[in-house]
Amino acid sequence: MNVKVNANYLNLKKNYLFSEIARRVAEYSSANPQKRIVRLGIGDVTLPLTPSVTGAMAQAVAEMGKKETFQGYPPSYGYDFLLKAISAHYASYGADIGTDEIFVSDGAKSDAGNITDIFGSNPVLITDPVYPVYFDSNVMAGNAVTFIPANRRNGFLPPPPSEKINGALIYLCSPNNPTGAVYDKAGLKAWVDYANDTGSLIIYDSAYEAYIKGDLPHTIYQIEGARDCAVEICSFSKTAGFTGVRCSWTVVPRTLVSGGVDIAGLWARRQATKFNGVPYIVQRGAEAALSERGYAECMDLVGYYMENARIISELLTRKGIYFTGGECAPYIWMQCPGGLSSWGFFDMLLEKAQVVGTPGAGFGANGEGYFRLTAFGTREDTYEAVRRLETVI
Amino acid sequence: MNVKVNANYLNLKKNYLFSEIARRVAEYSSANPQKRIVRLGIGDVTLPLTPSVTGAMAQAVAEMGKKETFQGYPPSYGYDFLLKAISAHYASYGADIGTDEIFVSDGAKSDAGNITDIFGSNPVLITDPVYPVYFDSNVMAGNAVTFIPANRRNGFLPPPPSEKINGALIYLCSPNNPTGAVYDKAGLKAWVDYANDTGSLIIYDSAYEAYIKGDLPHTIYQIEGARDCAVEICSFSKTAGFTGVRCSWTVVPRTLVSGGVDIAGLWARRQATKFNGVPYIVQRGAEAALSERGYAECMDLVGYYMENARIISELLTRKGIYFTGGECAPYIWMQCPGGLSSWGFFDMLLEKAQVVGTPGAGFGANGEGYFRLTAFGTREDTYEAVRRLETVI
Repeated sequence: MNVKVNANYLNLKKNYLFSEIARRVAEYSSANPQKRIVRLGIGDVTLPLTPSVTGAMAQAVAEMGKKETFQGYPPSYGYDFLLKAISAHYASYGADIGTDEIFVSDGAKSDAGNITDIFGSNPVLITDPVYPVYFDSNVMAGNAVTFIPANRRNGFLPPPPSEKINGALIYLCSPNNPTGAVYDKAGLKAWVDYANDTGSLIIYDSAYEAYIKGDLPHTIYQIEGARDCAVEICSFSKTAGFTGVRCSWTVVPRTLVSGGVDIAGLWARRQATKFNGVPYIVQRGAEAALSERGYAECMDLVGYYMENARIISELLTRKGIYFTGGECAPYIWMQCPGGLSSWGFFDMLLEKAQVVGTPGAGFGANGEGYFRLTAFGTREDTYEAVRRLETVI
Repeated sequence: MNVKVNANYLNLKKNYLFSEIARRVAEYSSANPQKRIVRLGIGDVTLPLTPSVTGAMAQAVAEMGKKETFQGYPPSYGYDFLLKAISAHYASYGADIGTDEIFVSDGAKSDAGNITDIFGSNPVLITDPVYPVYFDSNVMAGNAVTFIPANRRNGFLPPPPSEKINGALIYLCSPNNPTGAVYDKAGLKAWVDYANDTGSLIIYDSAYEAYIKGDLPHTIYQIEGARDCAVEICSFSKTAGFTGVRCSWTVVPRTLVSGGVDIAGLWARRQATKFNGVPYIVQRGAEAALSERGYAECMDLVGYYMENARIISELLTRKGIYFTGGECAPYIWMQCPGGLSSWGFFDMLLEKAQVVGTPGAGFGANGEGYFRLTAFGTREDTYEAVRRLETVI
């Protein structure tokens, strides 16, 4: 063939992180078949769906099997019943988001990846360490990316740069993956002010908002001025254990306008052309997750994982090891003890304790010397990992 | 804000077709509230999911509610069980497609729309009349589109152009939406030869393949040489009534290489970055649809719709009206009688018979003077529509 490919794809780096982890674990296991490995590297939930959700989905499956209640093509942007439930979820945080500003989709990753579609070539600011999709999707689009260093000095919550970069796309994730750090209102306000000051757009990923306790902002729309400079991507994956169910949403305020163009209109057109809506069965499950009983069940899931986080955090605090996260996020981002590199600590942990985590260097240059543990394991595995960690750090 | 938007979006025409139909029908209804309107314009299925599918999905919902059987993130390209079932489906047509060449996704529309992502700027050939997504997604990508006229002279099955256009992306849909016309092997071979001759890529949409009877090709991979020049997009939407369930796949043969770049590798990277897989529950339903019993049930759905198509076709044949489709496709593409324009015939049918179809002009310039009827209604509505059509044409 002689068709031109998107040459930007050839600039993508192969993502070796998880395949390299798998390779080293497999190598160790085959050399030490009698050793049981405990995994705290996983970014996926492990608890089953809650009764409200499975009940609603079972009911929806039955409806789809009857002529009178069968549902064909879903609305491109989500059923009204779900849009209303999401709008009410925002209202519970004091944020006023209309149903015509919410676009339901099949995953935060899809929306975070696809959103470059509706923009031209703009400067892009991404915090580092980072969820790889923000960066890779911009490489695919041929955009120049500037990394904003997150590090111990700024508590892994970098403020806006001193330089005023105009008309930028700014990616923020809070609670953060991989660091678990969460912006407070003042920290987020600084970014909103910077964006409004420079005519920039914040792409705000709030996928872990359900893990927040206390007065920290759950949504960027709790910050004054955000409706003029921010879209927000959120998901049922970590709130309701939907990683295998696939449902998320993106908020594009109708007040977002650039050069006279309505950004919500562009996203609406993109989704209506290149997406055909989320399954009825899934949307009924999502609606149930946001019901009073359903949300209480979700908070039980979150509570289980956060008890794991507390158990891990307690050890690190006792050992005097610096870390972020674990308080309002299912991730714990720890400094590697003894000045070890990310991979050095990985190998040591695997060798001496048979505990697997994720080397921070895999999330970006500023992740070197750090290590991510997650709270998504079982309670038993978490206790066992902590017992083993205790003996080696 | 001051971010640059994708200026190509501003070149999109608003798609007025279905909103204009809705407007005219609403206007007529409010002026004539006593008249019952029969709709043969709908492109969506109306029969419920089959017992095999709802049984498998109910079982999958139950599995998701138990810790031992819960499923988190699905594999990016589909579960092995579904990849194997799709590969076996191709084998049943004599086409050898490996599981590593199949990429399961949430809809043919998503894949047809997103595939421009992995290509650079190439000449684009699209048959006219056409499913709007092929054209709109290329406008969004800023590609120059050449339309290949489908018309009565070529039986709405246009052959390749005489001019050799090198390195083109060629969109073909067979059975065709909106015309219902189906390429035979020789017709498709001409396109495959043209593509191989010019180093072009065919993007083949086979979403309606289940409606084919007899010796016509169900997949482009029944044609020699197709593995070197074609990707194929197919869907469960019309085969198994999955428009509200959302499951499809794209085949990218490992033999497709352009300028030394493996096209399957590009698509794999796109999907892994901007998509997170299809729900477990949905994939279990899809697997069931391809089981022996499940597929027989699907063929019952197809048979029901095709009996509707036969009833409509019989009238048009008896009236001596030229049409395509209806034999191996759920669409009937008829010439408007009496030299009426597409919208003229629409208005006349609505006014005199209270039957609603889709004006062909809405699918492209070559659709003017034609009209699309679909077989997706109920049997009763189809009979009633035919009875009414009989009195006015």
